[in-house]
Amino acid sequence: MAQNEDPHAEGGPNGEGRPPGRYKVEVGPLKVPFLDIVLTTGETIRVEDTSGPTGHDLSQGLPPRRAAWIAAREARGDTNFSQMHYARRGIVTEEMEFIALREGVTPQFVRDEVAAGRAVIPANRKHLELEPMIIGRNFRCKVNANIGNSAVHSSLEEEVEKLQWSVKWGADTVMDLSTGARIHETREWILRNSPVPIGTVPIYQCLEKVKGKVEQLSIDLFLETLEEQAQQGVDYFTIHAGVRLRDVPLSANRVTGIVSRGGSIMAAWCLHHHKENFLWEHFDRICELMKRYDITFSLGDGLRPGSIADANDEAQFAELRALGELTKIAWEHDVQVMIEGPGHVPLHKIKENMDLQLLHCHEAPFYTLGPLVTDFCPGYDHMASAIGAAIIGSQGCAMLCYVTPKEHLGLPDKEDVKQGLMAYRIAAHSADVAKGLQSAWDRDNALSRARFEFRWEDQFNLALDPETARAYHDKTLPQDRMKSAHFCSMCGPRFCSMEISQRIRMGKRDELPPDSTGDAQAAVAGMAQKSAEFQASGGKVYVPVG
Amino acid sequence: MAQNEDPHAEGGPNGEGRPPGRYKVEVGPLKVPFLDIVLTTGETIRVEDTSGPTGHDLSQGLPPRRAAWIAAREARGDTNFSQMHYARRGIVTEEMEFIALREGVTPQFVRDEVAAGRAVIPANRKHLELEPMIIGRNFRCKVNANIGNSAVHSSLEEEVEKLQWSVKWGADTVMDLSTGARIHETREWILRNSPVPIGTVPIYQCLEKVKGKVEQLSIDLFLETLEEQAQQGVDYFTIHAGVRLRDVPLSANRVTGIVSRGGSIMAAWCLHHHKENFLWEHFDRICELMKRYDITFSLGDGLRPGSIADANDEAQFAELRALGELTKIAWEHDVQVMIEGPGHVPLHKIKENMDLQLLHCHEAPFYTLGPLVTDFCPGYDHMASAIGAAIIGSQGCAMLCYVTPKEHLGLPDKEDVKQGLMAYRIAAHSADVAKGLQSAWDRDNALSRARFEFRWEDQFNLALDPETARAYHDKTLPQDRMKSAHFCSMCGPRFCSMEISQRIRMGKRDELPPDSTGDAQAAVAGMAQKSAEFQASGGKVYVPVG
Repeated sequence: MAQNEDPHAEGGPNGEGRPPGRYKVEVGPLKVPFLDIVLTTGETIRVEDTSGPTGHDLSQGLPPRRAAWIAAREARGDTNFSQMHYARRGIVTEEMEFIALREGVTPQFVRDEVAAGRAVIPANRKHLELEPMIIGRNFRCKVNANIGNSAVHSSLEEEVEKLQWSVKWGADTVMDLSTGARIHETREWILRNSPVPIGTVPIYQCLEKVKGKVEQLSIDLFLETLEEQAQQGVDYFTIHAGVRLRDVPLSANRVTGIVSRGGSIMAAWCLHHHKENFLWEHFDRICELMKRYDITFSLGDGLRPGSIADANDEAQFAELRALGELTKIAWEHDVQVMIEGPGHVPLHKIKENMDLQLLHCHEAPFYTLGPLVTDFCPGYDHMASAIGAAIIGSQGCAMLCYVTPKEHLGLPDKEDVKQGLMAYRIAAHSADVAKGLQSAWDRDNALSRARFEFRWEDQFNLALDPETARAYHDKTLPQDRMKSAHFCSMCGPRFCSMEISQRIRMGKRDELPPDSTGDAQAAVAGMAQKSAEFQASGGKVYVPVG
Repeated sequence: MAQNEDPHAEGGPNGEGRPPGRYKVEVGPLKVPFLDIVLTTGETIRVEDTSGPTGHDLSQGLPPRRAAWIAAREARGDTNFSQMHYARRGIVTEEMEFIALREGVTPQFVRDEVAAGRAVIPANRKHLELEPMIIGRNFRCKVNANIGNSAVHSSLEEEVEKLQWSVKWGADTVMDLSTGARIHETREWILRNSPVPIGTVPIYQCLEKVKGKVEQLSIDLFLETLEEQAQQGVDYFTIHAGVRLRDVPLSANRVTGIVSRGGSIMAAWCLHHHKENFLWEHFDRICELMKRYDITFSLGDGLRPGSIADANDEAQFAELRALGELTKIAWEHDVQVMIEGPGHVPLHKIKENMDLQLLHCHEAPFYTLGPLVTDFCPGYDHMASAIGAAIIGSQGCAMLCYVTPKEHLGLPDKEDVKQGLMAYRIAAHSADVAKGLQSAWDRDNALSRARFEFRWEDQFNLALDPETARAYHDKTLPQDRMKSAHFCSMCGPRFCSMEISQRIRMGKRDELPPDSTGDAQAAVAGMAQKSAEFQASGGKVYVPVG
């Protein structure tokens, strides 16, 4: 992606004098990673970089960045390793300091948000390779990517590749949803190579253990499975403890019934035994385990709607209220909690979801799947859901689980994962813009200024996906000199509004309009000269006069 | 796309007994086109079809569907052919009847909305090939696609191909933005082959005529050009009459100045002569021409923001108020009007645009370009703008001008046009869902039921883009028998929530969970049997019991 992705950036001791380009840098004693985008104007736009270290041997894994931090806590005999536990005791952990720098806020603010339960830091003490990050509505909106093999397709190697691919394209967290063979081994490789938090849905592995016989599931089997995954370093668990026996019948008359895999498994268990969900019954025991590792709950919405027809119904909201009760129990243990949400919701019903989640779940962070705002476009569900995701993100949803173009149809390949992430980075970023985050505005404004001043290389370097932006531009105007042309290929030289607008700004009425003959070939031939003029002027011609 | 796109559908006289598939049909004496989607359940979902007749010789053009309607009006000596003129006199035209059937409302409702100025029917009396359609917030949300050559690229043949391609993928109107050679000839071919309204920006051709010398533009040259295009049958004109001399300086301190091509041309003219915009000064003369043909105004927003930084500023809203004044003048002539809108607007500022447009422009239909909700993703601006488009559509914007992935970078090719249209059909449809349009809900619900009941062929036929949905599905599970498999490739046989959910609904607790061994190969082998069972049961197994 970047031309200069060397952490040891060229230039002076503070990076000054670097040529235009993109540079991975590490800042401060905690070596917080950022991406420096150096513009042709000399300006540097520093943006978050969650793509992790590169160039490591997969079999060795990433460097254990958190080893010393965790060792100190273990050495002093801590028993509750939850970030919330520390925060509530006024302690600012290294994770909080790291995040404060990353998000551009004070460490105290990070601590207070975690203490209040409004934000979570998924960071299992066994996941030493992690670059800490935070999920909460007063921080940057985050994006999760799902990967995972299944009984039908995919291999271990492909899954680790998908992890690396996901973080390259901006996944803030990754869920490993593997359900097929080699679950444990796949997860180990993923964790050792992941700079971002990894989430799982442990009930999937439990079901493998009982060979698919739902009725044989039990709390003991579940806790044993949690322990195995906890030891590996999983940072957050999706647990469908809110699917209560009494609420399952509420889904009976829906258009699409129960669409959560975990939800349908727990509903089947409840109906088979006609007993309350064992995850609900034994929630305290689960909390005890979570705090020994600092694993964050992602309370699953097993009764989420699977179609816009089923959105905001009593089944969904009954479960939401149950998740609110579980949140309070988890917080009594100082265990961190986020709440999963839908799914499929028409545009006009999105706000009710966000409002009720904040109300019933006491402002614990919301983590939604989309939502899709229409059901008529399989093959484009990344787009249909990015619309809902942007809206709910702007209303305070803290993390958006991506959807790929293959949703409802098949397993995503690498290109699908990228397309899903691009759609969701756009959703999250536009939510941040709407929330007024200065860093998001700075990047947009820098790109808009570069656009107005025809600084094509700066536009590419500032873009979400420089490769694609550059390739699209070059398809129409491939010549190098066009990179500084005073127009783009959409309008051509005579009709470029920005060119005319520039002349208006500069007060050059005599030069209005550009007096080229309008003949396409002549116009193109004139470009080399224009380009030379521009370069000779050192870009000064574009300094606003007003 | 469809397997059976024959207007002479198989089956009985009313189409009964047709095999599952997609059928183009024409309904009633006015032969209003629809697409019938016949499901495996025997149910038919009838949806709008704006793709026009197929199989015609390009050099002959489409059949002149409106010839007799127009001939009668001309024969009786009408001088104002505007649909608004007829509507205000209580007349229901053939165009209104056609639209009523198309939209599922009464002809009187269509007439009253047009009379009130809340909706427009762009239908030049010289465009006989047109299938009438309506743009207004109490109807289906519409999508416009831009095509057009430029000085740098593209040919006549490519443009006509893009027209056909655009309507195939759902463009409700098409704007021909050609600026290069053979403008007139290109437009003639486009109009004679277009079943949808065609819009243009006449100032582009004017500028060609004066060889790019903006200062030589005049009202006489402009009216002469309008007359030429009117004779060809252009249905709506974008006219930047609201760019007033006094307002141009308001754009001086913007991040991206003036980004509308027409707006920058008119601003340059105003500054050169230091005179009021001649389109504003002579607006009455333009109205006189418009009503002789029934051409609809699309009042251009020449000072629209070109970056989110410039959104909702005084330059933009000063022009919006000017457009409101022009709207009243046009309505005095019974000339139809829609209002163009931005552009680039962050999520939280979209509603103000819609509210102020309704207020200042007296509820004339709003027609926006996106808006893009962020500026950081060149290469993905179709997605960034579809988010804004869906939101403003749900708030009442009547038509959404698409944006392609090449926006800000280059000229769109066919695949770009398709991707732009897919994004915008999703935006418009999700807006219709939010507005509560029953036909939109019917299609979504039919697809959701098909999904829940594993009717794969029905899902494909109901999809926005059946080809893509089918291809994505087949990439993971290519075997024909999988088309009726009780699971999809995402979860595999053991984890299919819908399968479990079905069993819950049917009360088959004994069969919970599916007892396959979980071995992938064995599971796949078992599918043939499952499929056979399903087919033998005649689909009855899926009849809901609750």
